[in-house]
Amino acid sequence: MQSRIVEVRQGILKKNDLLARDLRQRFAAADLFVVNLVSSPGAGKTTFLQATLTSLRARCRVAALVGDLATERDAERLKQSGAPVRQIVTGTVCHLEAEMVGSALADWDLAALDFLFIENVGNLVCPASYDLGENLRVVLLSVTEGEDKPLKYPTIFSGADLAILTKMDLAEAVGFDRDEALHNIQEVRPGLEVLETSARSGLGMEGWLEKLARSRAIS
Amino acid sequence: MQSRIVEVRQGILKKNDLLARDLRQRFAAADLFVVNLVSSPGAGKTTFLQATLTSLRARCRVAALVGDLATERDAERLKQSGAPVRQIVTGTVCHLEAEMVGSALADWDLAALDFLFIENVGNLVCPASYDLGENLRVVLLSVTEGEDKPLKYPTIFSGADLAILTKMDLAEAVGFDRDEALHNIQEVRPGLEVLETSARSGLGMEGWLEKLARSRAIS
Repeated sequence: MQSRIVEVRQGILKKNDLLARDLRQRFAAADLFVVNLVSSPGAGKTTFLQATLTSLRARCRVAALVGDLATERDAERLKQSGAPVRQIVTGTVCHLEAEMVGSALADWDLAALDFLFIENVGNLVCPASYDLGENLRVVLLSVTEGEDKPLKYPTIFSGADLAILTKMDLAEAVGFDRDEALHNIQEVRPGLEVLETSARSGLGMEGWLEKLARSRAIS
Repeated sequence: MQSRIVEVRQGILKKNDLLARDLRQRFAAADLFVVNLVSSPGAGKTTFLQATLTSLRARCRVAALVGDLATERDAERLKQSGAPVRQIVTGTVCHLEAEMVGSALADWDLAALDFLFIENVGNLVCPASYDLGENLRVVLLSVTEGEDKPLKYPTIFSGADLAILTKMDLAEAVGFDRDEALHNIQEVRPGLEVLETSARSGLGMEGWLEKLARSRAIS
């Protein structure tokens, strides 16, 4: 049984990789920069993205896709930024796949956008294995989750292009050990850039927006 | 492709259900009460379980199994309680399965134990679908994750026998809306019992230990 599971998983991945390649070409042709946000549930993806969309809207054309097992709550929250947002409801599926992204974007004019943010399903395991054709994969880690998470969920950290510490305003209240967290990230993915942020206090948000602009310019 | 995935998943579940039934019979024969703890990463399962094991050890015979993708860190932390602990490393698998539990317990004398705690992989999606033969499935939700998690991950809440709010000592710092969280849990699983706890301050821990004793007595 185990070997059959592995075979099928490889089959899905191969198909996903092909679809992700098509998406990547479509994004490049539209000069669109795509960011895939992954994290555990409750790490603050939606709050972080809401603040990002609200700030970026003043400077450029942005939109978002958001994946969840159930409800359209996150899309409703993100729409408050004024940006176009579409929800992908995955049912029992623990991650977004390239096919879901392709379907959700089918009738969008991508050339009318500068940035597309994809908020993945809250999960530190499954989304690591599914390329969505993004330019930048960002893993978020909140200070409330514990400094050991990079060691315990290495794949999602080693596959990321950028790590963002969230909820830094709570660092003291939860006894967050910043040095240990940074050390553990570097253990798993040496050289990975890390930004320290709080969407609530605004800490680090300007640096994040500059990082986005730089990344888009060189992409 | 999609239909084939579903077929295989059903195949795995059927096999898991059969193995879980065997485990349940084995647990009953040994008069062992088994608790399966599920939550997102960083909800505080290990800290909560460490406090539980430390308290229970004075009164009865306890042990734990702990599942993670990588590292033996949680097992090392739990062993500080003095209870026997075994780590299950799942690699890339996002949940524990009955077969993994059966293998980990193969050489244990279950009749020498009163309680076995299984700390599942940190994930609000996948563990919901895998019966481990437990008597009590407990879903933990930390106040730092957001009150909407029951609505966004309904399956894991609707399949639980008990919900435990953790990190209640941080409720004020994070602006936790207790009424909304309780309301959302009841939306998904009407009547589900909810305990409010903090392993750090000790809040609610005695009530949890009493709940365990009562549940074991009537099982």
